[in-house]
Amino acid sequence: MPHVEFRTSPPQYKHWRLAIDGPVATLTMDVDEQGGLVPGYELKLNSYDLGVDIELYDAVQRLRFSCPEVKAVVVTSGKDRIFCAGANIRMLAAASHPWKVNFCKFTNETRNGIEDATANSGQAYLAALNGTASGGGYELALACDKILLVDDRSSVVSLPELPLLGVLPGTGGLTRVVDKRHVRRDLADYFSTKSEGIGGKKAVAWKLVDEIVPRVRWDEILSERSRGSASTSARLPGGPAVELTELAKERTADSVGYRHVSARLDRDRAVAAITVTGPAADAPDSMAGVYAQGASCWPLAVARELDDLILDLRTNEPEIGTWTFETAGSDGSDGSDGSDGSGGSGGSADRVLAYDDLLLASYDSDWLAREIVLFWKRTLKRLDVTSRSLIALITPGSCFAGSLLELALAADRSFMLAGVFEEEDREAEPAAITVGAMNLGPLPMGNGLTRLATRFLGDPEALAGAEKTAGETLEAEEAERLGLVTFAPDDIDWDEEVRIAVEERASFSPDALTGLEANYRFAGPETIETKIFGRLTAWQNWIFYRPNASGPHGALRAYGTGKRADFDRKRV
Amino acid sequence: MPHVEFRTSPPQYKHWRLAIDGPVATLTMDVDEQGGLVPGYELKLNSYDLGVDIELYDAVQRLRFSCPEVKAVVVTSGKDRIFCAGANIRMLAAASHPWKVNFCKFTNETRNGIEDATANSGQAYLAALNGTASGGGYELALACDKILLVDDRSSVVSLPELPLLGVLPGTGGLTRVVDKRHVRRDLADYFSTKSEGIGGKKAVAWKLVDEIVPRVRWDEILSERSRGSASTSARLPGGPAVELTELAKERTADSVGYRHVSARLDRDRAVAAITVTGPAADAPDSMAGVYAQGASCWPLAVARELDDLILDLRTNEPEIGTWTFETAGSDGSDGSDGSDGSGGSGGSADRVLAYDDLLLASYDSDWLAREIVLFWKRTLKRLDVTSRSLIALITPGSCFAGSLLELALAADRSFMLAGVFEEEDREAEPAAITVGAMNLGPLPMGNGLTRLATRFLGDPEALAGAEKTAGETLEAEEAERLGLVTFAPDDIDWDEEVRIAVEERASFSPDALTGLEANYRFAGPETIETKIFGRLTAWQNWIFYRPNASGPHGALRAYGTGKRADFDRKRV
Repeated sequence: MPHVEFRTSPPQYKHWRLAIDGPVATLTMDVDEQGGLVPGYELKLNSYDLGVDIELYDAVQRLRFSCPEVKAVVVTSGKDRIFCAGANIRMLAAASHPWKVNFCKFTNETRNGIEDATANSGQAYLAALNGTASGGGYELALACDKILLVDDRSSVVSLPELPLLGVLPGTGGLTRVVDKRHVRRDLADYFSTKSEGIGGKKAVAWKLVDEIVPRVRWDEILSERSRGSASTSARLPGGPAVELTELAKERTADSVGYRHVSARLDRDRAVAAITVTGPAADAPDSMAGVYAQGASCWPLAVARELDDLILDLRTNEPEIGTWTFETAGSDGSDGSDGSDGSGGSGGSADRVLAYDDLLLASYDSDWLAREIVLFWKRTLKRLDVTSRSLIALITPGSCFAGSLLELALAADRSFMLAGVFEEEDREAEPAAITVGAMNLGPLPMGNGLTRLATRFLGDPEALAGAEKTAGETLEAEEAERLGLVTFAPDDIDWDEEVRIAVEERASFSPDALTGLEANYRFAGPETIETKIFGRLTAWQNWIFYRPNASGPHGALRAYGTGKRADFDRKRV
Repeated sequence: MPHVEFRTSPPQYKHWRLAIDGPVATLTMDVDEQGGLVPGYELKLNSYDLGVDIELYDAVQRLRFSCPEVKAVVVTSGKDRIFCAGANIRMLAAASHPWKVNFCKFTNETRNGIEDATANSGQAYLAALNGTASGGGYELALACDKILLVDDRSSVVSLPELPLLGVLPGTGGLTRVVDKRHVRRDLADYFSTKSEGIGGKKAVAWKLVDEIVPRVRWDEILSERSRGSASTSARLPGGPAVELTELAKERTADSVGYRHVSARLDRDRAVAAITVTGPAADAPDSMAGVYAQGASCWPLAVARELDDLILDLRTNEPEIGTWTFETAGSDGSDGSDGSDGSGGSGGSADRVLAYDDLLLASYDSDWLAREIVLFWKRTLKRLDVTSRSLIALITPGSCFAGSLLELALAADRSFMLAGVFEEEDREAEPAAITVGAMNLGPLPMGNGLTRLATRFLGDPEALAGAEKTAGETLEAEEAERLGLVTFAPDDIDWDEEVRIAVEERASFSPDALTGLEANYRFAGPETIETKIFGRLTAWQNWIFYRPNASGPHGALRAYGTGKRADFDRKRV
């Protein structure tokens, strides 16, 4: 696998054009056939690979932060008569199983981000299908708020994965067809087995698209619909655009470093030790200060760094199976600073909570405040669906408070030191955690619940007990009693307990761990999002892996060769 | 694979003992080590294979019908110090992938049936763990209403699948631990990686069991708890026990025949053509008549036959990938009889509806009425999770009304003839379907919705439109307009359309079809049941299939050999 970088910016785009016209942005997909991320395939017919999707993700992010005036986004194609042919089949056929699965996951996250922008940012996406949208191309349209299809007797929408390739649509198509667009299940079944697709009036009648538009009226109707969408947008007011400046990153063979986030990669133990550093200075008094800081504002910077780190490690370090999370005060290893007289929480923890409170106070009135919180929400969701064991290590000098406490709540297991490390610093303040407003609602998981509510599923008393400590600094014994951490070993047991947990994890079947975590992390209700990641992804993983798809005579390999796939016909 | 028969009865049991003491039944698991269904493994430590579970399923069914006085069921072990060690590992290691998946599915259905008896039949199950319950053994306990564990410093509950075998607990364990018993997700994670299990007070504190009981007080407390459970049971009164007499069945290489249900197996086209025949005589006037008919009562007999057929075809005919469903009047191919003056619905359809109404009228007052309806519910759910394409064919002489209409609503696609087959019988009554009370609530799918509501998900108007036709006979054009059937071809197009649908299905990847159907059939809300079948099963399928579990050096094969599994460490 090549090393993949997710950082990009519009001047570097090969495959997308971004144009802004007042409140309407247009994202035009015009894939460079020769611009594949790895050699061996041509991106014909606006088909895409991970590189194309990295640019789309970047554009969607920038529209949120750098385009406060944009209230509707049109996604269309720069090619003639084809909107998008979906994921490139030659790429899929040649890719390893982990690559395919990871590619689908990232693609799914971007589609969910599009829906999040529509639902929560006042940037509704409109799919303008000026030609056929098949497979992943139609799935991209399904993630949009509305779908317009040109009515020209040849343009259709289709999900040809099953009949042509022997796999499933891998980016939410099946779920969104029935659960979002409410296509009747038997019609959906027929549609998904008909490789030639459906267009015209039937596409509308079956709810596959919202509207068909004759080519002669295309520009006029599209402009009308996108302006209409913009005019009803709930995009919040606020200050000027924030430029997402290039993320400073130092990558070596065994480390990834950003300004506030770093990771040491221990390949022997298959662990990435991730540390997030708290704010070095107090939060500003008002959003004006946040605008002044721009992309360097601590919560925005940390979200960007975490986001990039997650994507980097997921894609480039598949054998690093466990990620530990630590936090540290910005003044070094000790989160408590001299100016903090409370004696409990460190100064960094207070600063985290102050940033959280500042953003939440303006969540309903300022676009930037909301965008930063939504970005944290999406980044934490990315962590939730990451196929790595997550372990939080809470020690003296850490600042697991509010938004940073979510990292511990997202973990599969957490260890919090009771007392201090005697030999290191017997005068240190013991580790403490603080529940804050960010833990009580604004950062829900894909299941629609907070991480606290998921943790205490079916136990409202324990949930209330934890929630009502908000603002209090909790040391290990109390945190364990409240159920906020898994284990609270003391100095004597710490090294051994943590070592065993990490080494054990490395000894288990990576596949079984992925399945276990995917099941336990998402207790409780299911949503379109959890269905896509939990149900659809699992089926797709299995189907991708079977010889009927990926074997030498499987449908994915046979496609385009003129040979028929040779199936094991047993139904499983 | 050996041919497997699911029909059995208590005198034939090798592995279970059923004892009744007033309102309390005790099911004792005492597995015959040498009694495995296929050669090659010994069922040590009360481990089980499909044969053991077939007996459990039979016992659970008989408790419902043949033991109206039973109001609580204790599940315990006849061995010393071991309750049940779960599915036999040697059996799993040697079994083919389809066998493993099918085995888990059936086992899951029986556990769900236990929960259904607890919730809806007033027969609460109590797991009396008189020794260690590990893996599938603990999962069986998890399906019970309450779990008692002996407190003897050695007996524990455990889910050692991940650490020992590199797979997941495959019969609902992960889902029930967090979603039913509300074990905190980080504790659940720890528990599921700790092969030695957890017993004593910690098992109670973590909610893994309800109560621990010292061995000296075991009998006393168990009796107290089971009597207590029986005393609060909502088991309905009614008539005497109904004996589930041996199901008459004729099985040839290419057919399966029962009294009311038959299947022709067309191996070349990979289709089973299933026909269900309507009642030959009118429904009795009251439940007294149903008691008099006993097991030969039409709705009970049909449910038993369908149930056995589904299990038979699933297990023994994995290459028959499509099942078509037809219904027929009992007087031959024509459902209308001379005595029916309405001119619309056939006499058989009316008789189906009359049976439906009779049972529903006594659903809240008579145990047998309720049990027959619940049996239909479970049988239809079995169909929903069957990995075969289901196609309903609705032609003149059929009787798709009420409970039988559910077969068409469960299908992935349905065809209804518009008009008649001119060459066959141009005077025939055209095909008609009738929505009845059974379609409006009593037979929900695993997602908690009726099949009608799932069909019209997100379209309350269409749902109401279909529901309000209840009792009307609907011919093809009207049924299609209402969205109750997928296609309504006429005589000229029928053969070609149906042929293409069936042949196309046989040409597609069987794996992809299974995934597609599993996603489309369960649109809408998710429940513990749909999570088990949709999410957990899909992950488990994938994990089972990967070399890390089932390869020559996988954990499942390495277990017990003294060799360590050799894992591909890449996280997917």
